[in-house]
Amino acid sequence: MVTIKEVAEEAGVSKSTVSRYISQKGYVGQDAQKKIKKAIESLNYSPNVLAQSLKSQRNQLVGLLLPDISNPFFPRLARGAEEFLKERGYRVMLGNIGEGEVLDEDYLKVLLQTKAAGIITTHDFTKTHPDLDIPVVVVDRVDQETEYGVFSDNRAGGRLAAEKIVQAGTSKVLLVRGPSDGAQSINQRFEAGLGYLKDKQIPTAISDSQSFDFDAIQKEAENMLDQNPDCDSIMAPSDVHAIAYIHEILSRGKKIPEDIQIIGYDDILMSRFIYPSLSTIHQSSYRLGQEAAELIYKIANQLPVEEKRVQLPVRYIERETLRRTYE
Amino acid sequence: MVTIKEVAEEAGVSKSTVSRYISQKGYVGQDAQKKIKKAIESLNYSPNVLAQSLKSQRNQLVGLLLPDISNPFFPRLARGAEEFLKERGYRVMLGNIGEGEVLDEDYLKVLLQTKAAGIITTHDFTKTHPDLDIPVVVVDRVDQETEYGVFSDNRAGGRLAAEKIVQAGTSKVLLVRGPSDGAQSINQRFEAGLGYLKDKQIPTAISDSQSFDFDAIQKEAENMLDQNPDCDSIMAPSDVHAIAYIHEILSRGKKIPEDIQIIGYDDILMSRFIYPSLSTIHQSSYRLGQEAAELIYKIANQLPVEEKRVQLPVRYIERETLRRTYE
Repeated sequence: MVTIKEVAEEAGVSKSTVSRYISQKGYVGQDAQKKIKKAIESLNYSPNVLAQSLKSQRNQLVGLLLPDISNPFFPRLARGAEEFLKERGYRVMLGNIGEGEVLDEDYLKVLLQTKAAGIITTHDFTKTHPDLDIPVVVVDRVDQETEYGVFSDNRAGGRLAAEKIVQAGTSKVLLVRGPSDGAQSINQRFEAGLGYLKDKQIPTAISDSQSFDFDAIQKEAENMLDQNPDCDSIMAPSDVHAIAYIHEILSRGKKIPEDIQIIGYDDILMSRFIYPSLSTIHQSSYRLGQEAAELIYKIANQLPVEEKRVQLPVRYIERETLRRTYE
Repeated sequence: MVTIKEVAEEAGVSKSTVSRYISQKGYVGQDAQKKIKKAIESLNYSPNVLAQSLKSQRNQLVGLLLPDISNPFFPRLARGAEEFLKERGYRVMLGNIGEGEVLDEDYLKVLLQTKAAGIITTHDFTKTHPDLDIPVVVVDRVDQETEYGVFSDNRAGGRLAAEKIVQAGTSKVLLVRGPSDGAQSINQRFEAGLGYLKDKQIPTAISDSQSFDFDAIQKEAENMLDQNPDCDSIMAPSDVHAIAYIHEILSRGKKIPEDIQIIGYDDILMSRFIYPSLSTIHQSSYRLGQEAAELIYKIANQLPVEEKRVQLPVRYIERETLRRTYE
């Protein structure tokens, strides 16, 4: 049976150009259109895509293995990856690998079995599975040993959050440490924030959080606010955490930011619309996904890669949950 | 060939403990370490897990094909399905099939190729692809010809939204019709709502919305509010739509609900936290996912299915965006 690849070779264009031509999605130049049409006719190619590609060797599929899409940070990241790859004829499939340290290998199996073009993941499993014959790009949770990775400047972000709290004035800060198992990015922010507060000799209390599940965080917030009545500031590891804390603080009749100020992290869409609107550190989840997609696309297609590790900047977004400073 | 499960049974510890031990990540007690080591030796287990299971025949994988996970309704639905299936040893992989009428067949290919156990989808492709040898359950967007489906009582929901608006008092209602291509559920609500308003002889204006993308909706809202200055009430096809409209209304210096009242649909988590908090029709996306998962699980395992089509109830959630009625 004739494959897209053979049509591409015959026409002297790339496989993805042929795909775009057949699916009538995306741009194909007039010259290329003519060549492909001719190739299809001379090879007697039938675009019965489904039956055909079940037999074809390689899949235009990229696996995206992320922790929890209930945290809007990740759907946005997925979207960035998806839009980049879709334009290039790839599809993305998403698997929820949870927050744990151990990778759910079933997803790997599926992706290897389908001969996926690559994997974008928050979990760098290339160390525990060094023999895998598939390109892997780590996103968000990149550590020093990661080969291909896209991540935000987490240290700068953590430090910036602490700086803004100190600038707004505080006598004691509650630092919420997110789920620590595996989330390198969150640990880095936490360490940087804590380091800054220690330098400035600001008293701190530390709370552990086990998940990004909203209801679970709300219960944690209840306990932590009971145990730390003297904290007038909260540094949250994510906007989801911050929103759960805000809810709990307001339900106690406390005022934000007068009684307790709080800063989030991520700048998810929701943080603009909640009441009071959330001051936070912005990182572009969309761009993280997009850059990771570009990297995996280059690796899969053996294009030159200039930067194996891409670091994206962060910035502070002023809204209503930090006290105003008039310096 | 020996599996992790067998090692766990032999050692008398959980499977995840064995995984942690093998990957050398996370905590494993000394006692457990000894037991696992002994079990691995006595079973002659080789931790080349991945290579192993690539040879097995069937995949414990369920494909979830949904339109757009940027709308929090769908991640929640995915979670309901995932949690049900995970407990039963299945994994879920998610593909974004967009809002269009034509199914992206690449996802089908992958799922057929991996011999997935079944597909849960909003797009009933069983009519255009009647020969597929895979169980399919349609969720949310079920029509009369759908064989296996889980859906909310959309007609009741649409009518209820219109009723609540009329009770609160209105002289003209702007009905926002969501993306109409394929979204049966949204059409049903719209029709039921419009029917009720016509019965009550309430003047209406109708707006079309092309997507669930927040920024796109905001632009639509701008135009629609310009064109319909006489509408004092808005019926939104989703909470995401409602939130975009609220944002636009407030930015014009109008008051909600005094000048314009608005009702959402779905009751996503965010609707509780925005300002003002959103009055809406609640449907349980989590339960939709869960019920769909149960159905696919039963079909895949040839268990008896009592109900091929499951309809879930909806209810009104009173918050702050509808005018209060004192009857």
